[in-house]
Amino acid sequence: MNEYWEKLSLKIDKEVGMKQIYLDNASTTPVFPEVIESISKSLESDYGNPSSLHRLGIESEKRINETIEGISETLHTSSEQVIFTSGGTEANNMAIIGLALDRHRRGKHLITSEIEHPSVLRAFEFLEDQSYDVTYLPVNNDGLISLDSLKEALRDNTILVSIMHVNNEIGSVQPIEDMGRIIKNANRNTAFHVDAVQSFGKLDLYPREWHIDLLSASGHKIHGPKGVGFLYKKRAVRIKPILFGGDQQDGLRSGTENIGGIVGLGRAIEINNQMRKKRPDHLYKLKELLLEQLKGHLPQAVFNGDVASTAGHIINISFPGLQGEVLLHALEQEGVYVGTGSACSSRDKKSSHVQKAIGIDDRRAQGSIRISTSYMTEETHIKAFVPILEKTISRIERFVRR
Amino acid sequence: MNEYWEKLSLKIDKEVGMKQIYLDNASTTPVFPEVIESISKSLESDYGNPSSLHRLGIESEKRINETIEGISETLHTSSEQVIFTSGGTEANNMAIIGLALDRHRRGKHLITSEIEHPSVLRAFEFLEDQSYDVTYLPVNNDGLISLDSLKEALRDNTILVSIMHVNNEIGSVQPIEDMGRIIKNANRNTAFHVDAVQSFGKLDLYPREWHIDLLSASGHKIHGPKGVGFLYKKRAVRIKPILFGGDQQDGLRSGTENIGGIVGLGRAIEINNQMRKKRPDHLYKLKELLLEQLKGHLPQAVFNGDVASTAGHIINISFPGLQGEVLLHALEQEGVYVGTGSACSSRDKKSSHVQKAIGIDDRRAQGSIRISTSYMTEETHIKAFVPILEKTISRIERFVRR
Repeated sequence: MNEYWEKLSLKIDKEVGMKQIYLDNASTTPVFPEVIESISKSLESDYGNPSSLHRLGIESEKRINETIEGISETLHTSSEQVIFTSGGTEANNMAIIGLALDRHRRGKHLITSEIEHPSVLRAFEFLEDQSYDVTYLPVNNDGLISLDSLKEALRDNTILVSIMHVNNEIGSVQPIEDMGRIIKNANRNTAFHVDAVQSFGKLDLYPREWHIDLLSASGHKIHGPKGVGFLYKKRAVRIKPILFGGDQQDGLRSGTENIGGIVGLGRAIEINNQMRKKRPDHLYKLKELLLEQLKGHLPQAVFNGDVASTAGHIINISFPGLQGEVLLHALEQEGVYVGTGSACSSRDKKSSHVQKAIGIDDRRAQGSIRISTSYMTEETHIKAFVPILEKTISRIERFVRR
Repeated sequence: MNEYWEKLSLKIDKEVGMKQIYLDNASTTPVFPEVIESISKSLESDYGNPSSLHRLGIESEKRINETIEGISETLHTSSEQVIFTSGGTEANNMAIIGLALDRHRRGKHLITSEIEHPSVLRAFEFLEDQSYDVTYLPVNNDGLISLDSLKEALRDNTILVSIMHVNNEIGSVQPIEDMGRIIKNANRNTAFHVDAVQSFGKLDLYPREWHIDLLSASGHKIHGPKGVGFLYKKRAVRIKPILFGGDQQDGLRSGTENIGGIVGLGRAIEINNQMRKKRPDHLYKLKELLLEQLKGHLPQAVFNGDVASTAGHIINISFPGLQGEVLLHALEQEGVYVGTGSACSSRDKKSSHVQKAIGIDDRRAQGSIRISTSYMTEETHIKAFVPILEKTISRIERFVRR
């Protein structure tokens, strides 16, 4: 068992009084112990304000630059801009609203898809209220956008296309590289934003080669702290700020920088990259194992999305006739944590817009759970998980039948 | 010497190789060691997403509610709303832009002052671009807004008055209680926002009694972490969100909550309150001591603002003929950290809008430094500081004369 996991697992065993299997990593991830250490150290030492002129301020500024270097390396770029935000939501809002406000004189047409994260969809709705015109591309039953539909949607006055790389609910992976080529062939002045919150640190990303102008990511999805994320931006692409004040971060994002969070993000990226390098196929192997185990134990499981092509770390399955929420709570009693749909919308009772878009009926949608892994998940977790899932489902079914 | 300070001071002694005196607390403050511990503990344990349905998510939500209780207690309120933000800048932006967007049908007139923080002034400039009409109240030479000018500025269609409690550069304290009464007497539907970033945790605040509808504060000004702040909001007052997404925090602020930061903020408030309760007049006593020492050592010092009425923790003084920036760097060589004007704007070379507003000429403005204390500052620091300041000034003067 991975030593990080073991350490955390033991800690939590003690706290909740049971062994636990954490399979809700697409919602949020446990923080790497080294990240916690780096944050503590930073909070102790780097207490200058990066905007201050004195040495303490300049030390803080250095810490920021170190994290920028780690991000640039991961994205195989250099010399482009990295703007730190309070998380993925702010990064998505900043990319979409900031770009639209900057380019409104060139055109007011925008393109996105039906299965984006709420922080993308709500940003576009805000722009629709400001008289922008938004095309929402549909997806097929596998949760994939067709390249033809993108081609057809592009117009002379399209200023932005925003597409998520890996879907947070069903794990479908869009063909970002092809999309970048299509967009720039149609109109070099159309900007391309990629919501990479679920793919950064898990899938390869080549923003320069893929013609990506703006890319969003979040710290707490890769074992960093909550409350910090970033927007990568090609230097030549201009956006308007959406927070106003002291003009920090080249005037693009006002507000004193979250030094502790930025240091923690940098360390999380470093460790995550090391773990990924060591076991590049780990997430896909975990998926294969899970599929194999499910086939043996629970052949009635229905996969939402095309499980052969989804990302390694997000699997969405339904047990028709069961309630996903009931299953989630029953699993919790066994120390197993999974998600239903997306955590961001799981507290409201509306059925998921993603499941609607891929044509799943209500009964199947309501019986769905999301199983999501990370580089801290081990094969032993998956092997222990499936029998518990099987047992839990038969317990619920007995109860329902009575 | 205070044990917190000593601990940090020793640490930094070792790092920068000299004894240090930190008097730049209005820019940012060292983090309390207990705050660092609480953040580490939270990052280890509270790794659920508060929006998740399972137990780990619910534990994270509890942590958020604990900090809300601490804030409510400090503000002598209960049952009103607290919305966590990425800091004071976002809280100010949210209050001003969020309220204006919500009430635009009732009126588009807004009132603020000439000496507000950039995160307030830039938010109003953004609204002016959206065809709102903003009155900027002037201040006298002491940095105070006259109540008569506020009365005269109020109109039937005034939807918001936004005034800072303690000015971040010169420490002037506005008569918030009187202002609240005047505003609500003129028009009960005019909202009152107070930027309390420099006063929260240092001066008494009674938002309910003072007719305050919205109040902003920041963690890193009271020995909490950077990257977290909050907006207090009367429940009955509606604002539009300025970040869009998963509708966290009652739909008012989307984005996964910064649990570690929120826990740290809560602990910082707790300790700061304890320190304040133990020595309620401490900051004023430090100011008296500083004035006395300056009188003895440096009678040529000119005070910017009315030093008799400013807050205890912010003193702005000029040494005409010197450059504040040169003095700051010379003091840094001695291990003494002070500020020039406001940190948020200190990297650009424009002269401060606050010093202009109180009628200080360029020569005097350029020779100014800001000395700012906190409950971690001790009398020994002030007593050691003034002779160093004296020595440093004569060293610079000798150099300049050559």
